[in-house]
Amino acid sequence: MNAQHAFSDAERDTIYQLIALRRDTRHFQPGATVDEAAMQRMLRAAHQAPSVGLMEPWLFIRLRDPALREQVLPLVAAERDATAQALGERAAEFLRLKVEGLRECAEVLAVVLAPDDGTVFGRRSMPREMAICSAACAVQNLWLAARAENLGLGWVSMFDPAALGALLRLPPGAMPLGLLCLGPVAQFYASPMLEQQGWRKAHLTDHPDAPLCRDNHWQD
Amino acid sequence: MNAQHAFSDAERDTIYQLIALRRDTRHFQPGATVDEAAMQRMLRAAHQAPSVGLMEPWLFIRLRDPALREQVLPLVAAERDATAQALGERAAEFLRLKVEGLRECAEVLAVVLAPDDGTVFGRRSMPREMAICSAACAVQNLWLAARAENLGLGWVSMFDPAALGALLRLPPGAMPLGLLCLGPVAQFYASPMLEQQGWRKAHLTDHPDAPLCRDNHWQD
Repeated sequence: MNAQHAFSDAERDTIYQLIALRRDTRHFQPGATVDEAAMQRMLRAAHQAPSVGLMEPWLFIRLRDPALREQVLPLVAAERDATAQALGERAAEFLRLKVEGLRECAEVLAVVLAPDDGTVFGRRSMPREMAICSAACAVQNLWLAARAENLGLGWVSMFDPAALGALLRLPPGAMPLGLLCLGPVAQFYASPMLEQQGWRKAHLTDHPDAPLCRDNHWQD
Repeated sequence: MNAQHAFSDAERDTIYQLIALRRDTRHFQPGATVDEAAMQRMLRAAHQAPSVGLMEPWLFIRLRDPALREQVLPLVAAERDATAQALGERAAEFLRLKVEGLRECAEVLAVVLAPDDGTVFGRRSMPREMAICSAACAVQNLWLAARAENLGLGWVSMFDPAALGALLRLPPGAMPLGLLCLGPVAQFYASPMLEQQGWRKAHLTDHPDAPLCRDNHWQD
């Protein structure tokens, strides 16, 4: 691969199209599978993410065992109930939303923040934040790779991290950041599902009049 | 844009090429500029990132004022010194590394974690982690967009967030996560710069024999 490759306008447009079409997915084709070569390509892309000081503080765990996938469900259900309670007057509306596709998706990957390896470079003043940022970049690579493979991916963060960590036998200091539902879909959402279901409007994304940045200071 | 677009194998390969070629960049062409239309496309791509509960907890600040860009330099220099001290026996080796391109790059963007808006959906149990993950995904989109525009981007996290927050007049609860150096480069790194300079080897990225994931549990 040529590191100096100049992307053409057409290639650039493909990349912007990909970024625009990536969606947080909760509807999958039950019984479908992910091609193993595609899985390896997507995971490789995840590991090509940037990381602070090259610490690569992420680990992916593939939930292959159907019994283990079953054991995840009550953890997510419990957090969904706790979320409904915390939401108060929007609880009933919330409980009508589909918040995950764990049963139907072809594959479930847990993304785990690894125990701190003591890296100082680039994170002396923000150690935890920077490690989390690196792990999130790996997920975003995987997410974009999934859409490039014409697959859906949904990031489920509705769980108690300690309980999920125990289930996945994580070592002390590791923390699960997400359960990634991955697989073929019947169709891709044209806009964020939470918008389609009337839960919330994104105020920045895909709104041509929203300011894209501020100049010099938060407020002038 | 057709939400159901099926990416071709050639398009998919372009995307994987992009992900593989993105680098954390510290060498820029002094005096160069970024095309304004490209800047708007890149920022739009950043805002198309996923976010927990659609909270979009990021804000980008473009440091247009040359005086303000000058004021950032001593903050980064101070943190570089503190890092060297914290590194102990590798201090001298560290101080020989180029850790940022703030003077030479065409544009500097600060990425800021916005004050918590109270979003509960998807983050009741991990509120701060999930907001940070969302902001990091926005940066990763911007980073990939920059490489697609044949520009370099470097994420500088070597600063005291409180001091930088004061300089950028951030409101209470907001936190700068990075200074993003952006602009044309003479050439792109063929491998991570910290590897090229002998600081550290990435143990996962681009190493064909590294395990890409574990099955079912951290350790079986």
